[in-house]
Amino acid sequence: MTDRAYALFEEQQQARGIDLNQVKTKLKALKIETPSWGYGDSGTRFKVFQKVGVPRDPYEKFEDAAQVHRVTGLCPSVAIHIPWDKVDDYGKLRSHAESLGLSIGAVNPNLFQEEEYMLGSVTNADPAIRRKAADHLLECVDIAKETRSRDLSLWFADGTNYPGQGDIRRRKAWMLEALAEMYKAMTPEMRMLIEYKFFEPGFYHTDLADWGMAYNYALKLGPQAQVLVDTGHHAQGTNIEHIVAYLIDEQRLGGFHFNSRKYADDDLIVGAINPYELFLIFYQILNAGADPDENIRRTVDNIAYMIDQSHNIEQKIPAMIRSVLNVQTQYAKALLIDHTQVEQAQSRGDVLGAEDAVRRAFEFDVTPLLHAVREEQGLPVDPMKAYLDSSYGKDILARGKGGASW
Amino acid sequence: MTDRAYALFEEQQQARGIDLNQVKTKLKALKIETPSWGYGDSGTRFKVFQKVGVPRDPYEKFEDAAQVHRVTGLCPSVAIHIPWDKVDDYGKLRSHAESLGLSIGAVNPNLFQEEEYMLGSVTNADPAIRRKAADHLLECVDIAKETRSRDLSLWFADGTNYPGQGDIRRRKAWMLEALAEMYKAMTPEMRMLIEYKFFEPGFYHTDLADWGMAYNYALKLGPQAQVLVDTGHHAQGTNIEHIVAYLIDEQRLGGFHFNSRKYADDDLIVGAINPYELFLIFYQILNAGADPDENIRRTVDNIAYMIDQSHNIEQKIPAMIRSVLNVQTQYAKALLIDHTQVEQAQSRGDVLGAEDAVRRAFEFDVTPLLHAVREEQGLPVDPMKAYLDSSYGKDILARGKGGASW
Amino acid sequence: MTDRAYALFEEQQQARGIDLNQVKTKLKALKIETPSWGYGDSGTRFKVFQKVGVPRDPYEKFEDAAQVHRVTGLCPSVAIHIPWDKVDDYGKLRSHAESLGLSIGAVNPNLFQEEEYMLGSVTNADPAIRRKAADHLLECVDIAKETRSRDLSLWFADGTNYPGQGDIRRRKAWMLEALAEMYKAMTPEMRMLIEYKFFEPGFYHTDLADWGMAYNYALKLGPQAQVLVDTGHHAQGTNIEHIVAYLIDEQRLGGFHFNSRKYADDDLIVGAINPYELFLIFYQILNAGADPDENIRRTVDNIAYMIDQSHNIEQKIPAMIRSVLNVQTQYAKALLIDHTQVEQAQSRGDVLGAEDAVRRAFEFDVTPLLHAVREEQGLPVDPMKAYLDSSYGKDILARGKGGASW
Amino acid sequence: MTDRAYALFEEQQQARGIDLNQVKTKLKALKIETPSWGYGDSGTRFKVFQKVGVPRDPYEKFEDAAQVHRVTGLCPSVAIHIPWDKVDDYGKLRSHAESLGLSIGAVNPNLFQEEEYMLGSVTNADPAIRRKAADHLLECVDIAKETRSRDLSLWFADGTNYPGQGDIRRRKAWMLEALAEMYKAMTPEMRMLIEYKFFEPGFYHTDLADWGMAYNYALKLGPQAQVLVDTGHHAQGTNIEHIVAYLIDEQRLGGFHFNSRKYADDDLIVGAINPYELFLIFYQILNAGADPDENIRRTVDNIAYMIDQSHNIEQKIPAMIRSVLNVQTQYAKALLIDHTQVEQAQSRGDVLGAEDAVRRAFEFDVTPLLHAVREEQGLPVDPMKAYLDSSYGKDILARGKGGASW
Repeated sequence: MTDRAYALFEEQQQARGIDLNQVKTKLKALKIETPSWGYGDSGTRFKVFQKVGVPRDPYEKFEDAAQVHRVTGLCPSVAIHIPWDKVDDYGKLRSHAESLGLSIGAVNPNLFQEEEYMLGSVTNADPAIRRKAADHLLECVDIAKETRSRDLSLWFADGTNYPGQGDIRRRKAWMLEALAEMYKAMTPEMRMLIEYKFFEPGFYHTDLADWGMAYNYALKLGPQAQVLVDTGHHAQGTNIEHIVAYLIDEQRLGGFHFNSRKYADDDLIVGAINPYELFLIFYQILNAGADPDENIRRTVDNIAYMIDQSHNIEQKIPAMIRSVLNVQTQYAKALLIDHTQVEQAQSRGDVLGAEDAVRRAFEFDVTPLLHAVREEQGLPVDPMKAYLDSSYGKDILARGKGGASW
Repeated sequence: MTDRAYALFEEQQQARGIDLNQVKTKLKALKIETPSWGYGDSGTRFKVFQKVGVPRDPYEKFEDAAQVHRVTGLCPSVAIHIPWDKVDDYGKLRSHAESLGLSIGAVNPNLFQEEEYMLGSVTNADPAIRRKAADHLLECVDIAKETRSRDLSLWFADGTNYPGQGDIRRRKAWMLEALAEMYKAMTPEMRMLIEYKFFEPGFYHTDLADWGMAYNYALKLGPQAQVLVDTGHHAQGTNIEHIVAYLIDEQRLGGFHFNSRKYADDDLIVGAINPYELFLIFYQILNAGADPDENIRRTVDNIAYMIDQSHNIEQKIPAMIRSVLNVQTQYAKALLIDHTQVEQAQSRGDVLGAEDAVRRAFEFDVTPLLHAVREEQGLPVDPMKAYLDSSYGKDILARGKGGASW
Repeated sequence: MTDRAYALFEEQQQARGIDLNQVKTKLKALKIETPSWGYGDSGTRFKVFQKVGVPRDPYEKFEDAAQVHRVTGLCPSVAIHIPWDKVDDYGKLRSHAESLGLSIGAVNPNLFQEEEYMLGSVTNADPAIRRKAADHLLECVDIAKETRSRDLSLWFADGTNYPGQGDIRRRKAWMLEALAEMYKAMTPEMRMLIEYKFFEPGFYHTDLADWGMAYNYALKLGPQAQVLVDTGHHAQGTNIEHIVAYLIDEQRLGGFHFNSRKYADDDLIVGAINPYELFLIFYQILNAGADPDENIRRTVDNIAYMIDQSHNIEQKIPAMIRSVLNVQTQYAKALLIDHTQVEQAQSRGDVLGAEDAVRRAFEFDVTPLLHAVREEQGLPVDPMKAYLDSSYGKDILARGKGGASW
Repeated sequence: MTDRAYALFEEQQQARGIDLNQVKTKLKALKIETPSWGYGDSGTRFKVFQKVGVPRDPYEKFEDAAQVHRVTGLCPSVAIHIPWDKVDDYGKLRSHAESLGLSIGAVNPNLFQEEEYMLGSVTNADPAIRRKAADHLLECVDIAKETRSRDLSLWFADGTNYPGQGDIRRRKAWMLEALAEMYKAMTPEMRMLIEYKFFEPGFYHTDLADWGMAYNYALKLGPQAQVLVDTGHHAQGTNIEHIVAYLIDEQRLGGFHFNSRKYADDDLIVGAINPYELFLIFYQILNAGADPDENIRRTVDNIAYMIDQSHNIEQKIPAMIRSVLNVQTQYAKALLIDHTQVEQAQSRGDVLGAEDAVRRAFEFDVTPLLHAVREEQGLPVDPMKAYLDSSYGKDILARGKGGASW
């Protein structure tokens, strides 16, 4: 049935003029970074439910991540969070990763879990605390050198809870100071990815509240500074794909933190709440990826796709597998868009025709295509099943409860 | 200056036809319950910042609460949360409260902090877990008997994170079962206050998601079941005062959990983000409080005003003092509305006149009035100053860090 | 290719244990009512762009609607709006409809376009205006008798723009009065469908603001009063499928006004912004449709599916075709859910498994299924193409500009 | 009573160290521009309720605006909208304005009311339509020369309703082209104020959707391009005062369109829904106005305060008077903030103290202050009463119904 399904799919797409070889090449090139902290316990302010089998140290997190890559072929790198993944010898961690077929991806500083940071880290009114925070950023640059990571991924919890609590403009300047110092310390190969967030944990104002603020810092810092879009960090109703297209056009989209949300920053499995939105994001990316301007194309090529979720009730490894498969699925669908048809409808002012040309691609079932690609790559056709059929999930139960968490 | 200020205020209000004696009587009758858990550590999912001096047990929580009542005269009762405030001898806790001039207020069951409740408590698909949850509700009825509490205040964290995760209608029926069993166990003097919440910690659906669901349960259960409005538990833009007016009109508004929010359930100090909204809530309450229908008036008289906040970065006791003073201030302003003037403008279709008649009351500075009331009650004129001038805040530092938290 | 596609689809579904005959039977039974006003000009407050070819009277609206039914087989009835569709002889309009293979569907009173209604219709402080509004409701009952319509579909624009402008509780009582009078006038076969809306054109409060208010009126009126869910009438983030499940469970869901929105009540083509939400609504409906309780099943059987959109920039007839096809597509996908599998996963607390069992059905491409159903019904396989290939769209250009609008 | 009230107020403020002379000077310097279109009929997509007495041409609009300035002393200029205020001889219109004590303020192009603009004006895929739109922009520059207006105020309704309908990045480039051409045509004294809007009438994407996009265009164009903040044009929950502080800090805040909203772009009377928000905006402005950096101070000095509302149900002139008085009131309150006290609390990490220092100013009743200022300026102490006592409102009834509208 699988073969016939693919044959039929191929026939369908050829009839539409879609070059499936190119589609497959792109699918095989897709890489999605998973986060080390996505394998540990996390929760809500009401409760962190502890799971049995959660990794107890960074080494075990990489082992779990290796399982996701083993069955999906999509996740060759793992982002780390400092100090959660602090180790004495990063060379050793890197070797461990490599022995598992992985590399160390983005380095994420953590500036929100020490008592001093209650009223801000790089934006704290106390210069000693700002210094401490800036030093941590520099430390992360050093770690990135050791881990050979290209990207430094920055999210600041800095913000205020009440009008008047902080001086908004002064905090803005302090943040620039810290970023500039860090930027200067980076090697020419490194990139600084600046993440923004609408709210939480700041409930009145967040210093880096939207893409405009992140973009503006990037402009002031230089070309190695880029914006990171977390799909859960926007006001209700925000057109995220518009922001994506906009940032690519300005050559400042550095990457994504994928997850999904229905309400606030719910950090659910990506693609679980509104899969069409994810598809539309890829539509913008692929549209720009075919731009005549080489700079635009290079921006697209360098987008870092990363998962950033907080699995409160799900089994960690299966949740991660589901997440990356959802990304792959929507990417595959977006690859079936006939851009010429869209543009022609746009040109003649055919609203329904243009909408249809985009949505039509979403309606295809890409399962046969993904099966074919996986087979060609020597991967399990059904990655989730392959994982669940393995003994890994049972073996790690021996780790017990109380593993890594945040 | 204070005397002259009050004299002028009195003159102003008399000129408007406001009966200040009645206003003062109402102000003196205002009671706001504070929550035991509001004195302990709380935070966001990112971090709970531990404060020095936080109470270490329920007894110390009542001592802190007594300070708030001492300086404000507004807070003679304290809500408790079970099992956070579980003690061997509730008679002893009650005596302790009474020795401090306090009583024990609403009893709040906790059905979200045990591992079994990860996928629901009274709505869990597992009947054993539902039984455990229902038993906890019955236990709380028993505790309420011992603490002589009128109100059982119910908030359920029950919900799901993904489409399909739970059977929405079956969960609805299970919740009714548990509530009905609890309702039956209550004495005729008790009330069940049913709280609803838009989202969190459920990120796809919340079993008790809005006032309509809480109201519908109350209808099915009987007259001792009422709805509890938490001011932070609505979708963005929701007109809360409309819901308040509606529930009073149906004689089903049992009480409030006051706090404020700008984004989600931010649990900030009440009145800190949009003080006008709080004023407009009281406008509806006072409007209904003068209704010719005795049942409506009785509903208004029995509304339980309670604070429910989570102070992440604030000093606990001052934050509570600020909160109750903000409630008192907006209540005082609302007492200055000339309802006859509003109604006349409404009758003649005078939009601007009606709006002005309401807003005008908000613009008065009620400081002289509140000073006068406090003096007449033998209370400190400036409660916050009185607290900060006392040694209490310093004395409790001896408790150290690591007190009660959730 | 079409035949092979269906054969493969059938094989796939049979392997999953789906009974395709039952699926087809249900698909053939699907009926979606289109609104007469959806064929006329409409727009935003900034501009109504007039289209050439828009129907000039109710008779032409039915002619356009007949085209939608001709190519889709889904839309045998058309809702009317009074006075927009006021005619001297409703018998004649009914005959006209019947001659086109149509019937007259829900009757919609209009209480928002006369100068008197600026400050409310049935909730106006002026008793003469309330009387006029109530009389219009009674007139619509009479029209429904003549048109043999089962449903009276009520949406009120009533609300206020400013705090204090209206007496919320008094307006609540006035609305009940008018509804009760109308209810009494209905024949036993008629139903009153009460629609609610979060906001617009009322910008401070809307008298019928949410499902709870509509439901409560229905409870007070009797079993012939039901709630109408317009998919664009909720606060951002609202879980609509939860409300749908809830109302079915209370046997009070009367019908839908389908459309889609990204921001406010955008009235876009249904399924255009978040198709998964539409699928999840049908998941709840189908889940309830298999309930052991006969009353629940009867509620589901009587749900009126209606389109209510405002096409600002789209070609009217194609936009309507697209809308009903989108509904059909998501309904077809929902019919592929394996409910047993979902329930089993729910029972064992398998979050990912339950989610997957629902979402999996969404991922199928139902095109082969819909083609097969259409062929069996003697309908065009591609309804949009069939319409565009016909000369109808060109023929109506002779109507010119300036047709019906609101 | 008025004198005593002011004496007491003065004493209070002096005790706080507030320099009332400076406060008064600033209050006397406050200028708020009213919009010509705010005097005509406007409404919602459901209905425009026509008022008797609405001005029939631009000349009468200025006469109405003169009444607002006569009683408030706050509104010496009036913004115009082209072509709504198109006249043959702008010199004559200017003379008419001057004869009424007014000047012509910002010139607002209109690019949303002609049939060609249905799918965009400067972003239309059709080059002829883009040319027409750009020409209109240039025409407005010419008009600004004749009217001696400093500001060109640009709001574009351009956007799309469906995914795929338009090429987002191409439209972005087209808009830049038009803006650059217009920028080049401006005299050195002119400013281009670029307004953004979250949504409406575009319901999928709006080309200029947020401050970041407006700011980015301004950066590309040059120092005469600034951002215009409309207080109703943001996603729910957005911290507008943060954006205000941010833009001032970047020296790119050109002005405001004031109005208020509870839901979408409700265009209600400014300050009617959340007066505290308006106060907090002025807090940020005044904080920046005392900055040591001269460029920041100059930015603040050049902020254009403009009303932009749509009065659906209100009497036009009184609604405008109420609006400007609300702005004046919140500005006056913000002038009472003790910035030193705020900063000291911020420096010592005193969250509650800093919040209190800001909010305290909001709680003062500034009526005595405003009365004193008006008396010193020879203005009516109660502007609304002064207007209502005049015969103007009755006199204009002779104009009849059917005046200017949009």
